[in-house]
Amino acid sequence: MAAYNQLKTRSRADYPFILDYRTRWSDNDMYHHMNNSIYNFLYDSIVNTYLIKHCAFDPQTSPQYGMVVHSHNDYFGSIAFPAVAELGLRVNQIGNSSVTYEIALFEKGVETVRSVGEFIQVFVDRKTAKPNANGMRDDLRQGLQRILVEQPKRQSKI
Amino acid sequence: MAAYNQLKTRSRADYPFILDYRTRWSDNDMYHHMNNSIYNFLYDSIVNTYLIKHCAFDPQTSPQYGMVVHSHNDYFGSIAFPAVAELGLRVNQIGNSSVTYEIALFEKGVETVRSVGEFIQVFVDRKTAKPNANGMRDDLRQGLQRILVEQPKRQSKI
Amino acid sequence: MAAYNQLKTRSRADYPFILDYRTRWSDNDMYHHMNNSIYNFLYDSIVNTYLIKHCAFDPQTSPQYGMVVHSHNDYFGSIAFPAVAELGLRVNQIGNSSVTYEIALFEKGVETVRSVGEFIQVFVDRKTAKPNANGMRDDLRQGLQRILVEQPKRQSKI
Amino acid sequence: MAAYNQLKTRSRADYPFILDYRTRWSDNDMYHHMNNSIYNFLYDSIVNTYLIKHCAFDPQTSPQYGMVVHSHNDYFGSIAFPAVAELGLRVNQIGNSSVTYEIALFEKGVETVRSVGEFIQVFVDRKTAKPNANGMRDDLRQGLQRILVEQPKRQSKI
Repeated sequence: MAAYNQLKTRSRADYPFILDYRTRWSDNDMYHHMNNSIYNFLYDSIVNTYLIKHCAFDPQTSPQYGMVVHSHNDYFGSIAFPAVAELGLRVNQIGNSSVTYEIALFEKGVETVRSVGEFIQVFVDRKTAKPNANGMRDDLRQGLQRILVEQPKRQSKI
Repeated sequence: MAAYNQLKTRSRADYPFILDYRTRWSDNDMYHHMNNSIYNFLYDSIVNTYLIKHCAFDPQTSPQYGMVVHSHNDYFGSIAFPAVAELGLRVNQIGNSSVTYEIALFEKGVETVRSVGEFIQVFVDRKTAKPNANGMRDDLRQGLQRILVEQPKRQSKI
Repeated sequence: MAAYNQLKTRSRADYPFILDYRTRWSDNDMYHHMNNSIYNFLYDSIVNTYLIKHCAFDPQTSPQYGMVVHSHNDYFGSIAFPAVAELGLRVNQIGNSSVTYEIALFEKGVETVRSVGEFIQVFVDRKTAKPNANGMRDDLRQGLQRILVEQPKRQSKI
Repeated sequence: MAAYNQLKTRSRADYPFILDYRTRWSDNDMYHHMNNSIYNFLYDSIVNTYLIKHCAFDPQTSPQYGMVVHSHNDYFGSIAFPAVAELGLRVNQIGNSSVTYEIALFEKGVETVRSVGEFIQVFVDRKTAKPNANGMRDDLRQGLQRILVEQPKRQSKI
């Protein structure tokens, strides 16, 4: 994971896959801003949309699917209904069976990033719910590699 | 409320205000379709977006706000993540303090309507949480009238 | 459906199956009360819990499952996080393939009912997503009949 | 944060404040388990319930409120509707204006922990949305200290 100060300067150009998500009334909590838990809903949505559209993934039938084993998120600013959120997705690391996604949330019309987080998914075989000795399938790997962003100074700990 | 068979034939042209909402991963339930409760989230979202953008309404500060007292919905077909939903909004009836919204859900790229429902909101004074003797404020009424669709055969029961 | 004034007087004794649901922070919306859409989440939860625990129903494998085709709800009062909600469930009508549930929401420690609604589910065959000519399966029917409350004056329209 | 292997062995006895949360139908996603984003909803709920019940906190009126600036979570196992979740809460660290909560999710009737995460909240003044030079208010600090668990080897980085 990049340092906090570095994440804070992320821009849309850092993300090869971007989708708009219109916020919903219920996203706002009692403080009149999108509740922090909703960020994860949107992160999950862009990750799975990318898998479905660009990695030949079908949540119902694909022989492997991803289990989230770790997530973390830094919140730099807020967004509120009825704004439109722009989610950016990249892959920071691909292991044998695991993938580390980085996702950022922007507000349409606003330059500075609102939040940046990472999700680690482990692809498991549908039949066993365990990783395969051969790792993730080729269609997954190839799709994920297309949005892999090289991490020059990164030292993997996982 | 129009008859079931009539609602089933609703088209986008029946709704003067339309917004796109991208579905989220968590909208799908165990049957791999958007859960029926999510429809209400989207209905609520388009209603409040219209109030904010076209009726000078501010959920935090406006002297009156709307309380939902009744809702009903008919489901004609399903939609599933990662599709994009198109919500249509119209007003079917305006009373002294109450408004009856009709909302329809379409799937982007598909002609037939997926669901149609109604919400009845009563506008109450923020200070008392009760309707005002003079009814809803003019800016609300004027905004709502712009999307009022005449109901020739309708007989109000509320 | 019973008349509005009658529903407003519903008590816990009118419901043979009752479950506690602790409200969540995100249930409250900007008005500091549980959002009206959340009621449906809870209705759906008690209905499916009853089906799983008392009707031998398994959402993943049962040969038939229920599709919600209609829902409506009347809101008499509000509830707010962190209160505990008590949901009451009964069956108002059983057809060949359809069932009409009535669900009420109470607040723990408060006598008067907050909301009452109905859900109509049609049981369909998993393979065809259509009702079976022989109607719903016996285990479903028998389980539902145990919480059927006779409706003396009711005239079915569905 | 404790090491992954250590977190995996957390038991209910590690948490001085515990609440039951009944899962909801919509918590399960297409994989028939509670979606990973729902964990955050429950974490947020127990944190805020503790603040309201034991720290004299009122989300609407208190002069300071907490903003989540960081969250992370490790998932060790799954839980599925209609199970009852047991959430455990402790405080790992109290700074001038910030607090680090640790929250664990258990399944009622099952010994091993399902997930453990941390939330960092910064208390800000309602009027400025910024931390106060004097830090968090005494009623907050005193309430939080009652569930503070000493971290012998921990080295704070925040």
